Amino acid sequence: MKICVAGLGLIGGSLCMALRRAGYSPDGWNRSPAPVEYALKNGIIAAAAARFEGYDVVFVALPPRATVDFINAHSFGDGAVVADICGVKGYIEREVYSRPRNFRYVGTHPMAGKEVSSVYNACAELFDGANMVITSCKGTDPAAKDMLVGLARQMGFGRVVECSAEVHDKKISYTSQLAHIVSNAYVRDDEMDCCSGFTGGSFQDMTRIAGVEEGVWAELYTLNRENLSERITNLCANLEKIKRALLSGEDELRAVLKEGRERFTAPAEGNPGGRIEITEFNGRGS
Amino acid sequence: MKICVAGLGLIGGSLCMALRRAGYSPDGWNRSPAPVEYALKNGIIAAAAARFEGYDVVFVALPPRATVDFINAHSFGDGAVVADICGVKGYIEREVYSRPRNFRYVGTHPMAGKEVSSVYNACAELFDGANMVITSCKGTDPAAKDMLVGLARQMGFGRVVECSAEVHDKKISYTSQLAHIVSNAYVRDDEMDCCSGFTGGSFQDMTRIAGVEEGVWAELYTLNRENLSERITNLCANLEKIKRALLSGEDELRAVLKEGRERFTAPAEGNPGGRIEITEFNGRGS
Repeated sequence: MKICVAGLGLIGGSLCMALRRAGYSPDGWNRSPAPVEYALKNGIIAAAAARFEGYDVVFVALPPRATVDFINAHSFGDGAVVADICGVKGYIEREVYSRPRNFRYVGTHPMAGKEVSSVYNACAELFDGANMVITSCKGTDPAAKDMLVGLARQMGFGRVVECSAEVHDKKISYTSQLAHIVSNAYVRDDEMDCCSGFTGGSFQDMTRIAGVEEGVWAELYTLNRENLSERITNLCANLEKIKRALLSGEDELRAVLKEGRERFTAPAEGNPGGRIEITEFNGRGS
Repeated sequence: MKICVAGLGLIGGSLCMALRRAGYSPDGWNRSPAPVEYALKNGIIAAAAARFEGYDVVFVALPPRATVDFINAHSFGDGAVVADICGVKGYIEREVYSRPRNFRYVGTHPMAGKEVSSVYNACAELFDGANMVITSCKGTDPAAKDMLVGLARQMGFGRVVECSAEVHDKKISYTSQLAHIVSNAYVRDDEMDCCSGFTGGSFQDMTRIAGVEEGVWAELYTLNRENLSERITNLCANLEKIKRALLSGEDELRAVLKEGRERFTAPAEGNPGGRIEITEFNGRGS
């Protein structure tokens, strides 16, 4: 299977390394030359790619708009599998399906990362045990999707979650994007000054990702703004609810905090309409 | 030095164990008998205490109101050091100083904990490298405070932070109490259902403490409600600010997220009026 990864950042570089660990020899491409040189020199890619017609699978590991631009600007082999790795899926799916195409598109979102970016921080173990979300719609070829499930398993992912782009974008606005927004908002309080002697583990957890570079995230959040703004609205309403209870009295506050604890320790397990399908792997390659 | 710990929960039990490790033989007291029996049997305390006049230092490791009740209900030796460990300090200080007393009161707040409670989870290492906040006011005896700084060092704390009860309560409302409120609010979104396949590290961090028992926390938050409600108000305002930027456009959002990142990576280091004094220890007992 001939594989190419377009975009050699943290995720693209780590995909290459995980694929090599699984026995593949991916080629690579990048917008700027330095990461390609580094990846070649360090055995992360087998060769630098310039054209993409000859590959069975092309992973496009670029920011959302750059992903769409890349797909529109290049030719792929008939029936080739082209998979993006973006943190928003509805936008990419709409753009890809708005044009005629000879390739088979599947959306993927590897749920792993670091607070640092670039191919220089890539590693083969980044995805070990992590979730891989695969998004599909009526136009998705089942065999193409299955091929990516198999690659995910070989790359070390612990679980594949399949759903629509719409479900993905809603869930991710909650589990990932809102968390960064909260961290970024949390550190703006005046009491942030000179607070280091008063911090414990919960403060570290709450603020760990407040310092990530905003560049690509601003693009992702903007492309998912309806979902994310709804999440922020909900969170503020829930914070206000707790504040009202706090100001009402201790019993009221205790009752409201109990609600939240129970919501967390026993979340509803419903999956209305079977919208989410989960495949667990037992160890790499199993 | 004869030391007693009143209240054998996670913190009280761990204080005993850290004191034993440092060469002391603390006695213990508890409202219910089972933790005393456990602590005796496991060598966590030397003896069960019933009266408190004979101790040089009494740590009161109880919830806030129970701490005040305990101090009011018992006699201590002339000049004995009595130290609470509560997560609010203004309330305790006001209550203690509202009555005549023959002992020397000092407020302490060991900044360590676990998601689980009780003496059965106590350990001698709980405070290793942690922050110990010591609160004082005009009425505080400097020698009593110095004695507690020395004990903190011997128990393994990494740093002692000294400030007024007022400064403590403001800082703690931000670094600790608000974090729990956010976790508890975060898990109430409808997207919490069936989200486990979509989570990464940032979601785990954001929700880790959502499941803690609300009992004692509701009391602590209520006793610090002015500060905590101000923190919630500020956080909601900052979340709304980011939401407005999100809905305005990508450049606006990027600029606002950059503000937060810079606030986090380069916090103001001012210490207006020298309100906070920090003593760093280099290793246990140094």
